[in-house]
Amino acid sequence: MEESFVPFRGIKNDLEGRLKCYKQDWTSGLRAGFRILAPTTYIFFASAIPVISFGEQLERETDGILTAVQTLASTALCGIIHSIIGGQPLLILGVAEPTVIMYTFMFNFAKNRLDLGSELFLAWTAWVCVWTAILLFLLAILGACSIINRFTRLAGELFGLLIAMLFMQEAIKGLVDEFRIPERENPKLLEFQPSWRFANGMFALVLSFGLLFTALRSRKARSWRYGSGSLRGFIADYGVPLMILVWTAVSYIPAGSTPKGIPRRLFSPNPWSPGAYENWTVMKDMLKVPVLYIIGAFIPATMLAVLYYFDHSVASQLAQQKEFNLRKPPSFHYDLLLLGFLTILCGLIGVPPANGVIPQSPMHTKSLATLKHQLLRNRIVETARKCMHNNASLGQVYDSMQEAYQQMQSPLVYQEPSARGLKELKESTIQMASTMGIIDAPVDETVFDVEKEIDDLLPIEVKEQRLSNLLQATMVGGCLAAMPFIKKIPTSVLWGYFAFMAIESLPGNQFWERILLLFTAPSRRYKVLEEYHATFVETVPFKTIAVFTIFQTAYLLVCFGMTWIPLAGVLFPLMIMLLVPVRQYILPKFFKGVHLQDLDAAEYEESPAVPFSLVTVSS
Amino acid sequence: MEESFVPFRGIKNDLEGRLKCYKQDWTSGLRAGFRILAPTTYIFFASAIPVISFGEQLERETDGILTAVQTLASTALCGIIHSIIGGQPLLILGVAEPTVIMYTFMFNFAKNRLDLGSELFLAWTAWVCVWTAILLFLLAILGACSIINRFTRLAGELFGLLIAMLFMQEAIKGLVDEFRIPERENPKLLEFQPSWRFANGMFALVLSFGLLFTALRSRKARSWRYGSGSLRGFIADYGVPLMILVWTAVSYIPAGSTPKGIPRRLFSPNPWSPGAYENWTVMKDMLKVPVLYIIGAFIPATMLAVLYYFDHSVASQLAQQKEFNLRKPPSFHYDLLLLGFLTILCGLIGVPPANGVIPQSPMHTKSLATLKHQLLRNRIVETARKCMHNNASLGQVYDSMQEAYQQMQSPLVYQEPSARGLKELKESTIQMASTMGIIDAPVDETVFDVEKEIDDLLPIEVKEQRLSNLLQATMVGGCLAAMPFIKKIPTSVLWGYFAFMAIESLPGNQFWERILLLFTAPSRRYKVLEEYHATFVETVPFKTIAVFTIFQTAYLLVCFGMTWIPLAGVLFPLMIMLLVPVRQYILPKFFKGVHLQDLDAAEYEESPAVPFSLVTVSS
Repeated sequence: MEESFVPFRGIKNDLEGRLKCYKQDWTSGLRAGFRILAPTTYIFFASAIPVISFGEQLERETDGILTAVQTLASTALCGIIHSIIGGQPLLILGVAEPTVIMYTFMFNFAKNRLDLGSELFLAWTAWVCVWTAILLFLLAILGACSIINRFTRLAGELFGLLIAMLFMQEAIKGLVDEFRIPERENPKLLEFQPSWRFANGMFALVLSFGLLFTALRSRKARSWRYGSGSLRGFIADYGVPLMILVWTAVSYIPAGSTPKGIPRRLFSPNPWSPGAYENWTVMKDMLKVPVLYIIGAFIPATMLAVLYYFDHSVASQLAQQKEFNLRKPPSFHYDLLLLGFLTILCGLIGVPPANGVIPQSPMHTKSLATLKHQLLRNRIVETARKCMHNNASLGQVYDSMQEAYQQMQSPLVYQEPSARGLKELKESTIQMASTMGIIDAPVDETVFDVEKEIDDLLPIEVKEQRLSNLLQATMVGGCLAAMPFIKKIPTSVLWGYFAFMAIESLPGNQFWERILLLFTAPSRRYKVLEEYHATFVETVPFKTIAVFTIFQTAYLLVCFGMTWIPLAGVLFPLMIMLLVPVRQYILPKFFKGVHLQDLDAAEYEESPAVPFSLVTVSS
Repeated sequence: MEESFVPFRGIKNDLEGRLKCYKQDWTSGLRAGFRILAPTTYIFFASAIPVISFGEQLERETDGILTAVQTLASTALCGIIHSIIGGQPLLILGVAEPTVIMYTFMFNFAKNRLDLGSELFLAWTAWVCVWTAILLFLLAILGACSIINRFTRLAGELFGLLIAMLFMQEAIKGLVDEFRIPERENPKLLEFQPSWRFANGMFALVLSFGLLFTALRSRKARSWRYGSGSLRGFIADYGVPLMILVWTAVSYIPAGSTPKGIPRRLFSPNPWSPGAYENWTVMKDMLKVPVLYIIGAFIPATMLAVLYYFDHSVASQLAQQKEFNLRKPPSFHYDLLLLGFLTILCGLIGVPPANGVIPQSPMHTKSLATLKHQLLRNRIVETARKCMHNNASLGQVYDSMQEAYQQMQSPLVYQEPSARGLKELKESTIQMASTMGIIDAPVDETVFDVEKEIDDLLPIEVKEQRLSNLLQATMVGGCLAAMPFIKKIPTSVLWGYFAFMAIESLPGNQFWERILLLFTAPSRRYKVLEEYHATFVETVPFKTIAVFTIFQTAYLLVCFGMTWIPLAGVLFPLMIMLLVPVRQYILPKFFKGVHLQDLDAAEYEESPAVPFSLVTVSS
């Protein structure tokens, strides 16, 4: 993506790039077989649960005009459309918290106007969506997403951590509220008596920490020592949904001895309840909105447009970070254009629009990387075993592994087959063979434990396809039919899940790892070096890392503080946008270029020559 | 200890052996300085908390005649006496669960007899104690403890695991009871209403799991990555008591909104309450007991004697296992004799007697091994640093480390200075130096990170002394004065602590590790080999390990089932005693000698020649 302001160029480039791999997007997904269900289910829960919770929140705030039915419908609809005709299929769409805040604000505004009222609220939001979409079209056509090129790890990871903080805040708030009487509920009810309220709160603590703890554990099942490999794999893949089931079941254990409202459960009308689908015909009311309000709708629309432009692009960017070694092109401009259409569509059918979400989008990529790893691993291990069975030498075994690896690389039509992963595999195998000094002797499993070695040999690769995105969005839609079951999930399990999502988004975030490094005792820093670690740990002096990280943390806290400001708080992404000029013009005055390059590589800065870098290491 | 039945010989040998190191027992303890407080506090809590809980149990069962005041007094008194004139100071004394069960039985028997009744209950138990003591004297004089020589790891670890199961059972029972109305309480009270009972149970879950989780984490603080070394050390040493404080404080957070009895807390009369010390004058009632009952007291006395003989010896043996590399002699016979005197003393002042306890005794040894390790480590690291500061070569650094190590070995008067640890230190340093190929070049910390290496270099040694035992027993006595504070601890924290003790006793138990090995996936067994592991993992075929472990597990379950039999259940140690002939005569028929030797070394079996063993390895 070159930086230029030729209209439509960005969109055109995106479309060209993605069309070339469009077919492969589907065939590759289908070839993964049933294993695609692992990332799909994982992301489905990560996507559906917050959406249901935001729907519940909207229901309280909009006097029941918008509910989880609408948020789920919007997420499913936008998700399905995006997965089929969207640019970047790694991107996950959903109704997000800022949208909920904006809609709450708009509802409070509308219901107090005599000539608008809550009856015309949805019609008015339809106009807001129209304006938003127009602004998004403009941004897409003018190539505004080019700025994403200047958007570095510094800003992306800060945003990621901020979202994690917001999720954690949501979890804590939710848990605290379990001890309180919910607003708009009858405080006279048996379950709101002090004793039952206290009991509910304590039960909520048990359920949410139970879920959090077991879900975190289950994600690590692959490295467990116990149980067969397939069981471990199953738990790692489906542990989180499984744990939601388990803890929901646990919440029914004391059912006989507690009133019906203990523990509190998700609340949403069934989609087939009367009144739950009044919004679908909102279009016919649009012309009833007074002209002044149609024009005034431009004001919230600008906020929404900035929000969507930013969230959508950053979610997409975080799902495509460099370390994932993606092989298919990005599609920022075209996806923003499509988002405009989706926003209009949502406006016209009276549901809050969905946009690209964090942390679900990077979680999606990560889970697809795990999938790809498993697929490669299984094939290569099988091949190597077969080969060793025939008394092959390590060299021969390597050749067979290489061949299997190559077969798994479906070369994309539009580019040369990548030799990267291949080369790495070769280098590490050869290195291993030479340390063992037995490249030509026949090997068996006691000498070369392929299962053990393979994890280190394989490079990170992502199963880039559209199927998991389509399936998860369809499943979100399926939630509408499954509402009676979903309503059985206790809210406290939800809070545990929010905390889980916050914690799951941390590993791999270098900002977070630098914060941890600051707290690592100097005598224990060698432990960081012993494990897998980013380059900067070795090349940048600790003091520089510390100053950089403290600056970033202070900035993070300012952003977090901003989210507490009523309404304007939703514009906190602007603060993060501000990091682009800060990174480009201010930071280089305080940090050496070579250090900045390691801490926060920017493509517009040229990497300095290596010798200089080496001098720095030993200094 | 030779096997012979010359009366008094065992006692004489024990006394001779321990007298030679008696002075060193004290000087060595004093030289450790304030650091001795770490194992002391650790064992104090492990000792006091169950004793208080057993006291509470006794209070319910004996209509308040015996309370935590008596169990604490007995534990403190016996502990202090044993620490000063006892043989093996690693042994920790306390009132144990079987004693509580026996006393409950005796109370139920006595209170239904017209000519005995609950008034003469204590006087009668005094007679039981007299008979028990006489039997213990006989056992000690006749050298019955010689059988402890034939008591192998098989039986010892099975017993250890059984105790862990009983502690865990106690924890689970306690937690379940938090949801129920306690016996002998007024069910009309506010806190026993269904809602508050449920709230109490849930709160108990939070507190006990909170304590369990944080206590387990804090024990591992030394290997944490964060915080300064001294903070980590402090948390590892005092984390468990600290967590009891923290969770007790947490239990007061909702104090304003809950009735007084939520959460339930430890209950015990203050020692200065009227009636709490009536038992001290029990001696004057002893002659009021009808002669028939005095003679009949012999029956429970035999059970108690068998129990004490067994528990005391096994606790002592588990505290002195081979891998601790103890350098001071054991003292089974003399300690049993002393236990007889202590039992009479307790009987005469109307308190239940204390005996050697599991898992506290092995926990004590382990914590003293940690202490010794820390002391050695600090001194040697300091020396090595000083040496490297002077540009010494690795050879010189090693010499200085060796010297420091030697200085820390206070040679015992009665034996040659041990060269064991020293040699190991030398071998590993030289090996390290040769792999680095730099034995003569000056080294600095970047090449030789002494802090990192030292943990692998040092052999396991135990700070064998009497001070920690004396101090912990005194602190248990101090609990009597601190009763108003102790009563603030919630019972649920107690259940968490019981679970903690059960789990803490598992690592190092080879039986437990073999059970885990059975569940380890074959493809992950290499992970066991990568870490520190016992010899048998490499030398004994997996199938043999499995059969041996399944046999042991079945035996364990039978023993566990036995503890459920009313009254007779306290004699489950007899089942474990039966393992001695089983091990000696039956097991060799099913397992190869060389495998048995690795799985369960018995001193009376000669180790077979090495070549045979090697053949087995490769088979």
